[in-house]
Amino acid sequence: MELIEVEVKYKVEEIESIIKKLEEMNAKIEGEVIEEDHYFNHPCRDFKNTDEALRIRVRSNSIELTYKGPKISNKTKSRIEVSVILNDSFDSILKLLGYLGFTKVAVVRKRRKVYRLGDYKISLDTVESLGDFVEIELRTQKETLHDAELRVLELARKLGLKGKPILKSYLELLLEKELSTSR
Amino acid sequence: MELIEVEVKYKVEEIESIIKKLEEMNAKIEGEVIEEDHYFNHPCRDFKNTDEALRIRVRSNSIELTYKGPKISNKTKSRIEVSVILNDSFDSILKLLGYLGFTKVAVVRKRRKVYRLGDYKISLDTVESLGDFVEIELRTQKETLHDAELRVLELARKLGLKGKPILKSYLELLLEKELSTSR
Repeated sequence: MELIEVEVKYKVEEIESIIKKLEEMNAKIEGEVIEEDHYFNHPCRDFKNTDEALRIRVRSNSIELTYKGPKISNKTKSRIEVSVILNDSFDSILKLLGYLGFTKVAVVRKRRKVYRLGDYKISLDTVESLGDFVEIELRTQKETLHDAELRVLELARKLGLKGKPILKSYLELLLEKELSTSR
Repeated sequence: MELIEVEVKYKVEEIESIIKKLEEMNAKIEGEVIEEDHYFNHPCRDFKNTDEALRIRVRSNSIELTYKGPKISNKTKSRIEVSVILNDSFDSILKLLGYLGFTKVAVVRKRRKVYRLGDYKISLDTVESLGDFVEIELRTQKETLHDAELRVLELARKLGLKGKPILKSYLELLLEKELSTSR
């Protein structure tokens, strides 16, 4: 069965008030990690147009290769996601992707604090050059996508997150920012 | 530093006489494994023309993703090789490659008995539909390729392996066979 990642993201000024609310709800802290996400473009289709992504995620103790499919909703950032954990060096997977013609686009660096509340995953991210964000995520099957979307939006409301969620990925936000500052 | 795999391969009728010679030379047996090699073609270039390969190798206890570059010699099967060990399921990497547009070409199944003699790796392979083969392999850097080629050919001679080595991969031999039987 294919799993879909259903996600909403909000920019926040003040991360401490979110943490306070999460703790009142008895959310459990899972840990804090530094993540370095290396994004690649495809050798023969432009992922910017197809709305896909290929990423190597490097943490202090793990390396993961992830494909993300195009968004399948206009209310949340919902997409198919497939990952493999690598038991090898960053250098090796970088070379392998290079030989296959994948080209490096950008690197997103962030500190991520993860909370769990039932089947919700809540990430508090401090992203280099972009600022602080909250992501609320559920994993679901295609059949229950709509229900999962309502639920992530409901938790966002309870956490006091206002306005429309950001549908763009950190990679897209970073590339936009680079483009605007280079003008 | 990029490592090059220098390899010669011979078809043999009688594998026992090779084992006897290896044991006389004090080669150490490393183990015997069943390998299932799944080969893929690239989404926008034909690996048959570019002489490259992308393979998922499945053993009972490991999954490995390998890229092989074009052959760089006409005397031996010498090529750049980059591998990553996966700490994940065959199903996940299969899906990930599928989403990226890689298409499955064929599966090569073999029983492989590996011997080590100094820095030589000697593989005795019983390949499904193709028969028995001996492969002699060294890993080297580009600068010492010629020397390594002489050395693999020299060991082949000592093991009584006659004739010109086979430069084709098992995948190529299998696809040729399928083509000729389908005619």
